[in-house]
Amino acid sequence: MEMTGKWFVESVYPDLAVMLRVQKVFYSGETAYQKVEVLESEVFGRSLVLDGKTQSTEKDEFVYHESLVHPAMLCHPNPKSVFIGGGGEGGTLREVLAHNTVEQATMLDLDREVVELCRRYLPNHHQGSFDDPRTNLQHRDARAFLEEPGDGFDVIILDLVDPLEGGTAYLLYTDEFYRIAKARLNPGGILVTQSGPAGLLSYEECFTTIYNTLGNVFGHTAAAQVHVPAFETLWGFTLASDSPLLQTPEENIDESLSSRVNKDLKHYDAETHRGMFALPKHLRNGIKAETRINRDATPVFMT
Amino acid sequence: MEMTGKWFVESVYPDLAVMLRVQKVFYSGETAYQKVEVLESEVFGRSLVLDGKTQSTEKDEFVYHESLVHPAMLCHPNPKSVFIGGGGEGGTLREVLAHNTVEQATMLDLDREVVELCRRYLPNHHQGSFDDPRTNLQHRDARAFLEEPGDGFDVIILDLVDPLEGGTAYLLYTDEFYRIAKARLNPGGILVTQSGPAGLLSYEECFTTIYNTLGNVFGHTAAAQVHVPAFETLWGFTLASDSPLLQTPEENIDESLSSRVNKDLKHYDAETHRGMFALPKHLRNGIKAETRINRDATPVFMT
Amino acid sequence: MEMTGKWFVESVYPDLAVMLRVQKVFYSGETAYQKVEVLESEVFGRSLVLDGKTQSTEKDEFVYHESLVHPAMLCHPNPKSVFIGGGGEGGTLREVLAHNTVEQATMLDLDREVVELCRRYLPNHHQGSFDDPRTNLQHRDARAFLEEPGDGFDVIILDLVDPLEGGTAYLLYTDEFYRIAKARLNPGGILVTQSGPAGLLSYEECFTTIYNTLGNVFGHTAAAQVHVPAFETLWGFTLASDSPLLQTPEENIDESLSSRVNKDLKHYDAETHRGMFALPKHLRNGIKAETRINRDATPVFMT
Amino acid sequence: MEMTGKWFVESVYPDLAVMLRVQKVFYSGETAYQKVEVLESEVFGRSLVLDGKTQSTEKDEFVYHESLVHPAMLCHPNPKSVFIGGGGEGGTLREVLAHNTVEQATMLDLDREVVELCRRYLPNHHQGSFDDPRTNLQHRDARAFLEEPGDGFDVIILDLVDPLEGGTAYLLYTDEFYRIAKARLNPGGILVTQSGPAGLLSYEECFTTIYNTLGNVFGHTAAAQVHVPAFETLWGFTLASDSPLLQTPEENIDESLSSRVNKDLKHYDAETHRGMFALPKHLRNGIKAETRINRDATPVFMT
Repeated sequence: MEMTGKWFVESVYPDLAVMLRVQKVFYSGETAYQKVEVLESEVFGRSLVLDGKTQSTEKDEFVYHESLVHPAMLCHPNPKSVFIGGGGEGGTLREVLAHNTVEQATMLDLDREVVELCRRYLPNHHQGSFDDPRTNLQHRDARAFLEEPGDGFDVIILDLVDPLEGGTAYLLYTDEFYRIAKARLNPGGILVTQSGPAGLLSYEECFTTIYNTLGNVFGHTAAAQVHVPAFETLWGFTLASDSPLLQTPEENIDESLSSRVNKDLKHYDAETHRGMFALPKHLRNGIKAETRINRDATPVFMT
Repeated sequence: MEMTGKWFVESVYPDLAVMLRVQKVFYSGETAYQKVEVLESEVFGRSLVLDGKTQSTEKDEFVYHESLVHPAMLCHPNPKSVFIGGGGEGGTLREVLAHNTVEQATMLDLDREVVELCRRYLPNHHQGSFDDPRTNLQHRDARAFLEEPGDGFDVIILDLVDPLEGGTAYLLYTDEFYRIAKARLNPGGILVTQSGPAGLLSYEECFTTIYNTLGNVFGHTAAAQVHVPAFETLWGFTLASDSPLLQTPEENIDESLSSRVNKDLKHYDAETHRGMFALPKHLRNGIKAETRINRDATPVFMT
Repeated sequence: MEMTGKWFVESVYPDLAVMLRVQKVFYSGETAYQKVEVLESEVFGRSLVLDGKTQSTEKDEFVYHESLVHPAMLCHPNPKSVFIGGGGEGGTLREVLAHNTVEQATMLDLDREVVELCRRYLPNHHQGSFDDPRTNLQHRDARAFLEEPGDGFDVIILDLVDPLEGGTAYLLYTDEFYRIAKARLNPGGILVTQSGPAGLLSYEECFTTIYNTLGNVFGHTAAAQVHVPAFETLWGFTLASDSPLLQTPEENIDESLSSRVNKDLKHYDAETHRGMFALPKHLRNGIKAETRINRDATPVFMT
Repeated sequence: MEMTGKWFVESVYPDLAVMLRVQKVFYSGETAYQKVEVLESEVFGRSLVLDGKTQSTEKDEFVYHESLVHPAMLCHPNPKSVFIGGGGEGGTLREVLAHNTVEQATMLDLDREVVELCRRYLPNHHQGSFDDPRTNLQHRDARAFLEEPGDGFDVIILDLVDPLEGGTAYLLYTDEFYRIAKARLNPGGILVTQSGPAGLLSYEECFTTIYNTLGNVFGHTAAAQVHVPAFETLWGFTLASDSPLLQTPEENIDESLSSRVNKDLKHYDAETHRGMFALPKHLRNGIKAETRINRDATPVFMT
């Protein structure tokens, strides 16, 4: 492979980095909250990079966004009101709005500038979803918003940046925060959060802790993993509710998708669901062995 | 991440490479067939690298070797005679010999020097399996050997280097070769082959073609994928037989493992099996769309 | 040094590359003749990169441009008419126009788009020199122009891209071309050409051949080298004339600069001159040993 | 240039690194004082790397060692007793012993293990000089040794690792140390020290301070620079004495070399000398502007 040219280098583990050839730099700058880059590569199309970490890319974002949104939405019999924390690219919003039950999607992304950059440079991510009349987009801190009294939500989807030390989001992964969020769920409501890397060499960074913390707050939890090529590893998601999860028999997933979702999905269906939620033995063992709970005062930071 | 130091760089896709910090170079040289390196890194422990491509590493080889060997072995009710093509590190042999039904494991790896280097530098891979009295190790071309008349095998396991242009193995992925191998299977026999990268961005390289080619030769096929961190993507395996595959109900896998395998596995069990064989929708669509068949005269090379 | 981020990688020798952290990509595209990038780095400021090779950078271009222009200009007692081949950034033009003897500077750069990009993005290079009334800028092939009948020049300065196979410039380094150029020199005229890398490990690429070829065409030649940080090696220049070169005693250089050049130079003066033209022994031996002559039919390409 | 393979990455400036393809790792380990690597590359042959910084390489060490040793030796009319501080590879010792006036060369290198590794792996550097009967090799701190009473030296050559914070050598670049060394010089004695990078972008790191500090201690100083490809920049040397330096007219250097040095040099002669000591204007300006003096309590560290 030819070496000359422009590359984006990103650390995956300590001592391992990925070099991605960059064809175009659409944007490179800094907002009030973070460094932002919008890059284009042959491999991934357009990528959003925040503070040096790839957040999502044109070629594989559907794997991530479908996996985050649809299992949670299908766990609920009739989700009308959905809260999205983070999700600046608009891909999560797009998948939520594809559900014909949804009457309002309230999306809070702290960083207005990032959302504006995504609107401009990542049209294939949002696909116009910011202009849907059901969208209620606000640029405020999700935790402060949820702490205020207000209407309940059927589904809360947390599409946040990782819990990095010094970052903007680590207080959105704690026991205290999950109790705040739970208080805003309607009866039968579901919460789902992106849960960081879930691969063999990385699940201890934050995945098992997030799972364990949610288990401390909710009566029922379920974890899934999918491979997102741009993240160079498996990625984790955790569902939580006080109602039993995944009640829909797998056989009924395809039927529900076809009656409730107004487009063809590329990644998610009943068989994909089966694979995502059947965790490998070493990961199940990791979950069993985990004892840490994320608390405001003692958060577990992703390394 | 600190940049100074020694790195091993490997291309994953065109325009994407991985940089792995190297702590020690145990060996770097060339055999009659290929370039060989044995490296040590903090991330992966000891790695075997052939012609610049990582073959397997100490930290994650169990995922690959357990996934390659046990589903095939459990498909057979009583595998006594097993053939292994390739597999120089000894990890496949080690997993085969863990089955208490096995009376003989015939392993053919063309490159005697590679096997000797693995014996010396990768003890955690082979764990003494080359010295098991049931092992029959030969350094010959697997295709020529299987073409000769000889005893049949219950299970044939192909743990080969990828089908690279100019490489030593691409004629071990063709329709013609699979017919030769099939002719040496005992009734009810099973063949399994490593099948290259099976991720979203790479399954078209060779995975779907190998699956399609095996489907042209055998009555039954089944494909699985697992994430192998050192390969930076999902990896594919394909089972093939003229008898129905995976007859063992998933519920019985754990029981079979405990009665037939004389050690605790770290990766594979019934739940892992469910995840491995439940392919995501985009990959199933890729398989359906595949029409190429690998033939000696028109092989599909991995890029 | 932190690894994460955007880098520009450039090969210096086979098996050795430089990684430069990029802060901003001002431009990345392709003209009719070549790939063009304008990058910004902390180390070098703004760089012009053509076909993956750094041409000149804001922080060190003065070393290159002063070294190329002033020795040749001072060799001539009264240079009024100057020809510049190449030199798209405008730095060579800027240094030529600083000589108060100059009445006209005719600059031919084939690639109009590159010159326009330089005008826009590299103001510290050209410093307005394209707008000087003495400038006659044309976008034509320098060889074709010089072959036509026309007025003579006192100094011809060749600030060309390197003689790369398949490139636009290798026919501007040959015996045949130098004879064409010489025919357009006024009596006592001087030619100078950038001559490629002149370091210990790279002078054989093209430097000694260019020197040898000029010696085949002109009665007098003199070579110099300077260290240009962005090129990661010493860089060579060759002067040629049918009149004796460097007649000005070194003692008079500073005086000539102060009477003829209307600005303070940062790099060049009498003492710098002494250092540039005193080549180290191994390079002088390399020059002596060189027998190749660049001819149209058998050009020596830079590797 | 092909990217796959083993590389050594070394930072040159902040934001700029060099990647060198490694063919062989002869040694990689840690002594009581530092990390040591002996690498082989196509570009440079065998390299000695200490704490991640290339110290010298087979292909270009002669430039460095001849430039360090011979100007100082020729400044002295009849150097019999020479002190070498550092110089573990043996290249400095080799050049010193080439002088037929030398009766004893006392070399102090703190790190016995490094010297042993060099003896074993870098035969082309030392060329047997450790076994010369005139060699007196000791493994002690040079400063402590010079502080003790003892015989005087005609020439003191400091071939030390750079003055890095936390390193072993920064107290061998201070005013206090130079006074200690001066006290051990015989009348008419000369001191020379390697003085760090002297290129346009790096001379402020330590070169000008070392020069300024020596000027505070000795009556006469002279600085030189040469391009050492493996250092990716110009490298500085400073001579100091209480007697006038460089008294030998340049015309006599070649004659002195032929009468006093018992081999052909590859780099150094009168003309090379002229180039080395004729510093470019910007560097002379940097020297003039320098006011810092290295003191034990306030050393200037190389960055």
